[in-house]
Amino acid sequence: MINDDTIVALATPSGAGAIAVIRLSGDDAIVIADTCFQSIKSEKTLSNQKTHTIHLGHIVEDGRTIDEVLVSIFKNPNSYTGENVVEISCHGSNYIQQEIIQLFLRKGCRMATAGEFTLRAFLNGKLDLSQAEAVADLISSDNEASHQIAMQQMRGGFSSEIAKLREELLNFASLIELELDFAEEDVEFADRTQFKELIERIRFVLKRLIDSFAVGNVIKNGIPVAIVGEPNVGKSTLLNALLNEERAIVSEIAGTTRDTIEDEISIGGIGFRFIDTAGIRETKDVVESIGIKKTFEKIDQAQVVVYLFESDVVSNDHMKSNTIRVEIEKIRNKYPLKPLLVIANKVDKISENQQLKLDDTLSKIEGSSFMFISAKQNIGVDALKQQLLSYVNTGALRNNDTIITNSRHYDSLIKAFEEVERVREGLESGLSGDLLAIDIRQALYHFGEITGEISNDDLLGNIFANFCIGK
Amino acid sequence: MINDDTIVALATPSGAGAIAVIRLSGDDAIVIADTCFQSIKSEKTLSNQKTHTIHLGHIVEDGRTIDEVLVSIFKNPNSYTGENVVEISCHGSNYIQQEIIQLFLRKGCRMATAGEFTLRAFLNGKLDLSQAEAVADLISSDNEASHQIAMQQMRGGFSSEIAKLREELLNFASLIELELDFAEEDVEFADRTQFKELIERIRFVLKRLIDSFAVGNVIKNGIPVAIVGEPNVGKSTLLNALLNEERAIVSEIAGTTRDTIEDEISIGGIGFRFIDTAGIRETKDVVESIGIKKTFEKIDQAQVVVYLFESDVVSNDHMKSNTIRVEIEKIRNKYPLKPLLVIANKVDKISENQQLKLDDTLSKIEGSSFMFISAKQNIGVDALKQQLLSYVNTGALRNNDTIITNSRHYDSLIKAFEEVERVREGLESGLSGDLLAIDIRQALYHFGEITGEISNDDLLGNIFANFCIGK
Repeated sequence: MINDDTIVALATPSGAGAIAVIRLSGDDAIVIADTCFQSIKSEKTLSNQKTHTIHLGHIVEDGRTIDEVLVSIFKNPNSYTGENVVEISCHGSNYIQQEIIQLFLRKGCRMATAGEFTLRAFLNGKLDLSQAEAVADLISSDNEASHQIAMQQMRGGFSSEIAKLREELLNFASLIELELDFAEEDVEFADRTQFKELIERIRFVLKRLIDSFAVGNVIKNGIPVAIVGEPNVGKSTLLNALLNEERAIVSEIAGTTRDTIEDEISIGGIGFRFIDTAGIRETKDVVESIGIKKTFEKIDQAQVVVYLFESDVVSNDHMKSNTIRVEIEKIRNKYPLKPLLVIANKVDKISENQQLKLDDTLSKIEGSSFMFISAKQNIGVDALKQQLLSYVNTGALRNNDTIITNSRHYDSLIKAFEEVERVREGLESGLSGDLLAIDIRQALYHFGEITGEISNDDLLGNIFANFCIGK
Repeated sequence: MINDDTIVALATPSGAGAIAVIRLSGDDAIVIADTCFQSIKSEKTLSNQKTHTIHLGHIVEDGRTIDEVLVSIFKNPNSYTGENVVEISCHGSNYIQQEIIQLFLRKGCRMATAGEFTLRAFLNGKLDLSQAEAVADLISSDNEASHQIAMQQMRGGFSSEIAKLREELLNFASLIELELDFAEEDVEFADRTQFKELIERIRFVLKRLIDSFAVGNVIKNGIPVAIVGEPNVGKSTLLNALLNEERAIVSEIAGTTRDTIEDEISIGGIGFRFIDTAGIRETKDVVESIGIKKTFEKIDQAQVVVYLFESDVVSNDHMKSNTIRVEIEKIRNKYPLKPLLVIANKVDKISENQQLKLDDTLSKIEGSSFMFISAKQNIGVDALKQQLLSYVNTGALRNNDTIITNSRHYDSLIKAFEEVERVREGLESGLSGDLLAIDIRQALYHFGEITGEISNDDLLGNIFANFCIGK
């Protein structure tokens, strides 16, 4: 799979900006760059320059100047990919970007495929597979928690934890396999008590890593929160109060929010994906009915449900207050395990007495939490944020524990755990060394899958296809 | 206007990509970067590093790692702005970009305003004003011709031409002013014959530069070409054939293209802005009528008019053939000076005989050119491109002459020319030295406006407001 050709791609986002960066990597990267580069001041050749230096000059072809650029040189192995790398910082016009890339293609470079720079870094041993995967996570992370996890993974926190376990296990595997060579002498090189201790420790760590996936997954993908309630109760206003900006359409006409609007904000470093729904009031309007069906579909996907109603309307209208009780119980019964948060909006529009009465009635609905807010006056919005945050187990995050966010790692950890279980059972039942060794090897295999010691072209293809081009 | 604070901005396009570059400039740029930078391998301080070197490390705040980055150092005066400059190449997530910029704001940097890096480069004498303006032109150039002109201007081609004239004129101004000191002795330091020669030369150069604005302007902004014709004659298909991609909506229903669609393509390095119109056929449909009014508005703005009709329909229908003759003559009469190109589309659908007959009738309409094409079969499209190119005077471009594209420069050149005219007349009529000197100084003033030797905050504010932030 290792290619010795030189690849080229735009490394910065497409579109016009002040500058753009075009990246080359491969044995001939510097030599090829030299054929198109004219230093401003002297007859400089890039090949003769030190690694990690920058050179001002022109990109030229047949006497025509394409741009004035800064060229950065990174020499094998001291580069991102481990190969010779050249980064050209040019003026950020689409035209110039394209002209320079086209020029390098004519000079024998090849367009890089998605993630090919990072793939080469992996193949050249600059980072392991889980670190390479963290690079893509890092680029797509958009809140503090997912950023922190990706950064830790990229810096090798996870890899080193896995590598340490793997090494200890490998050590025992060798000892047990050594026993097999002396089978007739009935020796025991691997201390079974120590081995059992190790297996227990590995089980404990694997269990913790596997359990962390639950929180890791929500952190990586954001926590979906469905906001349910009759039209015009202030769902959009609440969304805006949470978002601190006008993204959803706020209108005084009931039923405005017919389409579900998704928006993500970061609360306490965790991404919450708010799903504004059309509510679930009974209606004969066809469009509204479709909206209600959509609302339930959205609740299906949500991890937390927020039910919103207007304090003033409910306090003054017995029928209404009945309706919302029915609706809340309908949701609670349909989704008994989902956290359900009931919010009385427009608290600024009712008296203290009315507030007490409402609290008395609605805080008693079992399996739900109840709070007053005014989205418009920004009353109780911070308390709401805290309440939402309480639905996420952020302990692991605070303790800086390793958190798994990648389902591929999760799968391998589960498989490794199953094999380790088998080893444990084998040890208990006094399984013969040759059979034990097979199970240990199998567990080691799954550890190796995570860091990429075990990999194949298909797997690598799948992983790096999700990268952007230029990375 | 010179600030000694340190500015920071994102230099690459916003949005997620493989990498992003954040730029700092100011006396303290490197010192500030040092407070947030931790080298990977050693206790390196950026301040102790050589200019034009790159350093791998982490951006950290209070022990928290924001990203692994490459930091480039440029030391005063060897940088774009002439100040200390730091460029941080980070992972391209929006979150990381924002976190790093926020960190530098907390460390005492200020957000750069639009074009402020280039403004500082100008104020520090790294480039003159016309070169600074060329930087913005370069970034916005999207075809070969406008790119070539901007590049030449940025490299100082125009500035040096102006500077040379200015110097020679300044020399004579000094001599004439010297005469004034010796007024009572009636000496003549400035040789009037040589001076007249110089003035003639300056007039010639100024005239050429002023004239070049006509072509410079169309090259910079693209040449607007209105495509006129009845609905469904293949305007959109023609546009697509010219564009080589499906940008306009092509449909079989007459009258589809009710809104004008603008699209620019580069032909022979020149940008043509094609304006698809709804045609001008007589109609009672209100929407169509609005379309026709828009068509005429678009022709008003266009520099070339293309009239398109279907060969087959016109060949077989006497009424139709009459209608299009009327329409072509209507356009020709309304816009007698605009190049009018009549195109018979769908030439593949008529016989050779019909073709001869049509050619005989329509090629005779005075003041217009006539040609056959098939947009669908790609017949005659290249010839059409050549015909369009013939409407642009590309001679100056081929000769690598300086071409003016900036209306501010044009205005100053016109004013300088008027003053030089006055000097010439003064010389002819034997005007006294003191009055001559005033006119010469005035001409010199306008030369200075172009290169920025004469400038003020308002002017600079206007110029750099058009830049993007980060440049």
